[in-house]
Amino acid sequence: MRRSLAAILQSNRFERLIIAIILINSVTLGLATNEAVMASAGPLIDMLDHAILAIFGIEIVARLFTFRARFFRDPWSIFDFVIVGLALIPAVGPFQIVRTLRIMRLLRLISILPSLRRVIGGLVLALPGMGSVVILLALLMYVAAVMATTLYGAQFPDWFGTIGASLYTLFQVMTLESWSMGIVRPVMEVSPHAWLFFVPFILLSTYSVLNLVIGVIVSAMQQEGDIQTDAELQSLHGDNTTVLKELRALRAEISGLRRQLERGAAQ
Amino acid sequence: MRRSLAAILQSNRFERLIIAIILINSVTLGLATNEAVMASAGPLIDMLDHAILAIFGIEIVARLFTFRARFFRDPWSIFDFVIVGLALIPAVGPFQIVRTLRIMRLLRLISILPSLRRVIGGLVLALPGMGSVVILLALLMYVAAVMATTLYGAQFPDWFGTIGASLYTLFQVMTLESWSMGIVRPVMEVSPHAWLFFVPFILLSTYSVLNLVIGVIVSAMQQEGDIQTDAELQSLHGDNTTVLKELRALRAEISGLRRQLERGAAQ
Amino acid sequence: MRRSLAAILQSNRFERLIIAIILINSVTLGLATNEAVMASAGPLIDMLDHAILAIFGIEIVARLFTFRARFFRDPWSIFDFVIVGLALIPAVGPFQIVRTLRIMRLLRLISILPSLRRVIGGLVLALPGMGSVVILLALLMYVAAVMATTLYGAQFPDWFGTIGASLYTLFQVMTLESWSMGIVRPVMEVSPHAWLFFVPFILLSTYSVLNLVIGVIVSAMQQEGDIQTDAELQSLHGDNTTVLKELRALRAEISGLRRQLERGAAQ
Amino acid sequence: MRRSLAAILQSNRFERLIIAIILINSVTLGLATNEAVMASAGPLIDMLDHAILAIFGIEIVARLFTFRARFFRDPWSIFDFVIVGLALIPAVGPFQIVRTLRIMRLLRLISILPSLRRVIGGLVLALPGMGSVVILLALLMYVAAVMATTLYGAQFPDWFGTIGASLYTLFQVMTLESWSMGIVRPVMEVSPHAWLFFVPFILLSTYSVLNLVIGVIVSAMQQEGDIQTDAELQSLHGDNTTVLKELRALRAEISGLRRQLERGAAQ
Repeated sequence: MRRSLAAILQSNRFERLIIAIILINSVTLGLATNEAVMASAGPLIDMLDHAILAIFGIEIVARLFTFRARFFRDPWSIFDFVIVGLALIPAVGPFQIVRTLRIMRLLRLISILPSLRRVIGGLVLALPGMGSVVILLALLMYVAAVMATTLYGAQFPDWFGTIGASLYTLFQVMTLESWSMGIVRPVMEVSPHAWLFFVPFILLSTYSVLNLVIGVIVSAMQQEGDIQTDAELQSLHGDNTTVLKELRALRAEISGLRRQLERGAAQ
Repeated sequence: MRRSLAAILQSNRFERLIIAIILINSVTLGLATNEAVMASAGPLIDMLDHAILAIFGIEIVARLFTFRARFFRDPWSIFDFVIVGLALIPAVGPFQIVRTLRIMRLLRLISILPSLRRVIGGLVLALPGMGSVVILLALLMYVAAVMATTLYGAQFPDWFGTIGASLYTLFQVMTLESWSMGIVRPVMEVSPHAWLFFVPFILLSTYSVLNLVIGVIVSAMQQEGDIQTDAELQSLHGDNTTVLKELRALRAEISGLRRQLERGAAQ
Repeated sequence: MRRSLAAILQSNRFERLIIAIILINSVTLGLATNEAVMASAGPLIDMLDHAILAIFGIEIVARLFTFRARFFRDPWSIFDFVIVGLALIPAVGPFQIVRTLRIMRLLRLISILPSLRRVIGGLVLALPGMGSVVILLALLMYVAAVMATTLYGAQFPDWFGTIGASLYTLFQVMTLESWSMGIVRPVMEVSPHAWLFFVPFILLSTYSVLNLVIGVIVSAMQQEGDIQTDAELQSLHGDNTTVLKELRALRAEISGLRRQLERGAAQ
Repeated sequence: MRRSLAAILQSNRFERLIIAIILINSVTLGLATNEAVMASAGPLIDMLDHAILAIFGIEIVARLFTFRARFFRDPWSIFDFVIVGLALIPAVGPFQIVRTLRIMRLLRLISILPSLRRVIGGLVLALPGMGSVVILLALLMYVAAVMATTLYGAQFPDWFGTIGASLYTLFQVMTLESWSMGIVRPVMEVSPHAWLFFVPFILLSTYSVLNLVIGVIVSAMQQEGDIQTDAELQSLHGDNTTVLKELRALRAEISGLRRQLERGAAQ
């Protein structure tokens, strides 16, 4: 029975069914945000949502039963498991926010569609190469946040009152959003030399982000370039192989000649 | 008669005439936005516009008559047909907006000038490679919009009241326009943890857009690189071909030698 | 005399003298913007400025006398000529703005320093490749400006009252500066569907700008790549040349062998 | 004794100890910005800070004693020396700001961790290639600042009153932050043609920055490309070396043949 279940679970038809259910669910979850719709068709939408959740639950249980330990070796299965499992947390008290996470079920599209899975894989693969620059950027942010809190925390508690507030404000400054008219000009009215802190911070942080971006570009290029270069090399190696074959044939020819001569001399 | 009409329609002189008419029309349509000009020369400008539209109409009919089915096989012809055809919709009631689409006739420059047609072709060709990332970005936007509507819709109906409003606001946040001072700081005054939603959203969406951009860069590079690499390979293959020729000549020489020896031995 | 003048004008010492004078002039022109400095040392600064201008004038006349027609064949000479000549326009009435152009004399540093001249040359060389995309962007801007003027001109005369105002506002929107909070949200309060115009405009214009940027990147890469590839090819051609030499030596050897054999057979 | 001290200072265990102390110090310096924490545990945190500073001081002295002149030949040692030395400046009067620089001790992580040191090295190495474009950008900024001060200084003293204010405002405009709604639109209400100054300034400065960015991208690519190309070349050179070896063996064979023939003829 496990074998036939596995055949069903891995069939294209079943996959398309699940995709259709995800899309329907994304529509019902979208409609659920509309009060007018909920007033008139609320019970229907809730019922649909529960039914779909039940289907997903059964699917996960079926996959668990079928693939057992293998289920937990595939990160995308764990992803599905967590996303569907979220629905089991009762939406009361501090967990009320969990209800808003229901829409993340739509992300199951990623785990089902191989092309999306590949893109996510590519995005994730580019991350390790960023490691050192990200640590540097984090260092820069933390050092700057401590300095900003010490320098401007007393006068601008909303922006620089705590390290957390400073980190948020510096992130805003790094994205260049209202950095001057919104933050630095008001600060400069109290501390006229504030630009000595903020302008270098902007230059350093945007330069670091630029290097992150370049890291991603270079690694993307290299992947493309490797494939291309390999083909090139293959073709030139092919040429050289032909040359070598020709050379060896020539050597055999000459060896034959030599033996013939030796035989001639021996006669 | 169809043949001579085709010759006229495809002549350089006719093409230059149409370009001149398009440029004149773009000037008259520009002037038509100026009330002072319309007050003094309105009838003249309207007359010119109608005359130019008539010329375009006759041109399209002539091309239809000449090329028949072939006309509809060229996407740029259909583009011209739609743009000129827009003028036939009466500009009344809900169709009043159609009047403002008249200026799109200027876009016929693209369908006439081969260099622009090529650029548009290039821009369009880069799109399929973006497919998966665009779908991911759309998923991210929809999921985030549903979440934002649920979380902040009640308190900020202008920004997050409906999924449509949320999509627009999140698009604004993604372009980093006033994201903090304009949107997130006011939201944080009500929900202090809102940054937990918006900062990851900014990181994810800008990272996705970055990957879109890199996709376009890499595909542009590859097209250039392919051409260059081909030339390189050609040149090295050329070298190898010379080497092989030399080797074969050598082998012939040695074969000759062998035959000579054999003849010598046979004597 | 012309020859000795040419030797002086092209000497390193004279070049360094002119650079020093340009730098002094840039300081005096900077000081001239400060009212307190002008109140105390105004006549001195004006005198210095006139003296420097006289030196520049004499230099240009000397170069004109020395190089004659050749002077006008070098675009940088014409650049110097125009910049120094600006000072001769009397700074009265509508020409008062010319006085503020005096500082452009500092740009003579570019025409004197070869490294800067080369950078400017590189920046200018990248422009022709942008031609078609720039025309497309101009088309897009003009079409959008006419549409925006027609649609929103009556209600927002400051932003979209004339085609000029619309072009400026759309340029602002293209740079993403306050596009939503500053422009589109206020417009949407009157015309709720305005986003149907502005969001596609943003996507199209930023995509076009992206393609401009990519064009510059690709052309910069290609220049670098060409040099690198040439070195590579050179090195592999070198290898192949060695192989060919070896092959020819081999052939000579065999020919010698054959001749020897023939001689042997003839004996 | 110096040798055993050097062994300790360069051991992995000592390095990890210093890293741990830096991390602890970064936490205490972070906590020191929080008033509530300082009210309850201020003396403890100050004591920890002094103790850590003493450890760093002893470490520097030990390294000075051990490596002597060599200490000052390593730029990272000087970096450590300056950062720790900052603490010795008394935090009174105008030096009060020095206290906020304490957090820079966290940057010692960079001088300790080789991977971060390499990234910083890479970022710094990319700078010389930017030289000319940076000089151009500085020229552009200075010329534009003098012009802006002359043109708009009287009416907008906060933004363009001095060259310093103009430089700051133009830097803001270059980052596109509120350039239109915040700066240029208000200026245009007084001087309607101000866009003739600001729009070209934006185009020129962003184009220059773009070229800076491209310079960094190209140099990063080249470094990667060089390594890759070297591997490629190595592999093809390897092929060619095999071919040459084969050819030389062939030549030896033929020489042997010739000698044999000569001997045969001599008999």
